[in-house]
Amino acid sequence: MFGGVEAGGTKFVCVVGTGPDAILATTRIEVSDPATTLAAAVRFFRDAPDGGVSLAAIGVASFGPIELRRGHPRYGSITNTPKPGWSGTDMIGPFRAAFGVPVGFDMDVNAAALAEGRWGSTRGLGSFVYLTVGTGIGGGAVVDGRLLPGLGHPEMGHVVVPRRPGDVFPGSCPFHGDCLEGMASGPAVAARFAQRAEELDSTDREAAVALVAWYLAAGVSSLVYALAPQRVVIGGGLGLMPGLVPATRAALATRLGGYPGLPEHVGKDFVVPAGLGGMAGPLGSLILAERAAAGGAG
Amino acid sequence: MFGGVEAGGTKFVCVVGTGPDAILATTRIEVSDPATTLAAAVRFFRDAPDGGVSLAAIGVASFGPIELRRGHPRYGSITNTPKPGWSGTDMIGPFRAAFGVPVGFDMDVNAAALAEGRWGSTRGLGSFVYLTVGTGIGGGAVVDGRLLPGLGHPEMGHVVVPRRPGDVFPGSCPFHGDCLEGMASGPAVAARFAQRAEELDSTDREAAVALVAWYLAAGVSSLVYALAPQRVVIGGGLGLMPGLVPATRAALATRLGGYPGLPEHVGKDFVVPAGLGGMAGPLGSLILAERAAAGGAG
Repeated sequence: MFGGVEAGGTKFVCVVGTGPDAILATTRIEVSDPATTLAAAVRFFRDAPDGGVSLAAIGVASFGPIELRRGHPRYGSITNTPKPGWSGTDMIGPFRAAFGVPVGFDMDVNAAALAEGRWGSTRGLGSFVYLTVGTGIGGGAVVDGRLLPGLGHPEMGHVVVPRRPGDVFPGSCPFHGDCLEGMASGPAVAARFAQRAEELDSTDREAAVALVAWYLAAGVSSLVYALAPQRVVIGGGLGLMPGLVPATRAALATRLGGYPGLPEHVGKDFVVPAGLGGMAGPLGSLILAERAAAGGAG
Repeated sequence: MFGGVEAGGTKFVCVVGTGPDAILATTRIEVSDPATTLAAAVRFFRDAPDGGVSLAAIGVASFGPIELRRGHPRYGSITNTPKPGWSGTDMIGPFRAAFGVPVGFDMDVNAAALAEGRWGSTRGLGSFVYLTVGTGIGGGAVVDGRLLPGLGHPEMGHVVVPRRPGDVFPGSCPFHGDCLEGMASGPAVAARFAQRAEELDSTDREAAVALVAWYLAAGVSSLVYALAPQRVVIGGGLGLMPGLVPATRAALATRLGGYPGLPEHVGKDFVVPAGLGGMAGPLGSLILAERAAAGGAG
């Protein structure tokens, strides 16, 4: 049995189980300060049927940026986040201390990508991208069946995008202003329409979908040209908004301009919604736990 | 002994040898039509000291886009290029027919990336990007010591870029107009300044360096956020223009805006010139030949 935590910026989702058809318990924790939030997650596993004693490992799929280098003194921590109070938070220590089991650790989007690859929209594919579009925009890439290794980890939400003609919104990213996340994340949509995306009336919702799709297509085109994925999966609260995936698919075809001319890029299977919906991240955290139990990279 | 061809859009560079310190012969062929150009390359190997009989394999490092899927009927061919007459050209058949040896095949930039990894600026690194900036802009990525596999191959020159404030140049890319290649390649510079980059006076050259660096930094930031490379190597005719690499390094630091805050990204070792200079591609073609001889992927 594994424990998993999808540690997002606004909520933590904790699960006990082994896969989509074997979830024994799950809870949702609103994020407050690090100590309170992590303690609530520890308490959830303690309250599991057998008090957590049967957990072979725990996986933490965290919002970022995070320190992923195994030998680094801050491995397992959030690094440099604009989220007040969370920079430097040790995301794995509390679970190790409470349960004495291996704790796997990776980006939330990397875990979601692993889950989509095992159970969701990218089963059988070697190379793909998982993008979450919500409070932030982030992406995980699987390349040849493995998470993209490198210096740190990708931050796909921060790719540069051109400005949609007529768009004068300054952008909401505290680092870049008008990067993809700054132009097309939940807060960017909320700021433009002066209300949250889920509360928009149908006219505004249509305009928001067109807007987000335009920027996503621009960003996805760069990911296509940089990474050559076989598929791009879209998840996240805003990403799962009705109509967004088809609108992004159409805008991407326009944006690619027939180059390099692969029929796959403009097919219906290229940009797809997350097969696991909002459960991609939590299920991915179970895969991180499983890997940690096996002694592999978190 | 291996034969190598760096097949670029304006010239082919052919070499016989095994590495940077063991080049027996080399030649440069101006590109005309496919049949004439490929025949000239075949003739060069025939004219090698022993008539080409000691060539164990030949490697072709080609401009793109190309068909790289091994089982595909058009494997080894140029696919959809704006270069008149070259779409559909079989780039390996003439060498197989003439010499009866294995012929390795990959993107010019992928081969250059391999050569920089073995002999140049990225020795010992697992994950890096090689960007060539010249007639076109293209990139190859090595991830965990291997060329990035995927659907087709990267086309990094075509990532989207925002517009530099005040820049009204429409862009020179026939597919996208103002993508990175459309704004910062040799033809884009030549069109803005009404003369070729190498002929600019010092004032214009300084302006061109600032311009190209601004766009390169934007594009490289997306590559950093998409691929998390440990280093970015810049080659190509325009890329090797004096001052461009330092200017790109400075512009990249500004563009990243301190996010995700890795000191490596703003260090002097992050954006570097090609260690092999203009020989990265030709030397990479020898690695493609070596791989083909060993029966591995071209």
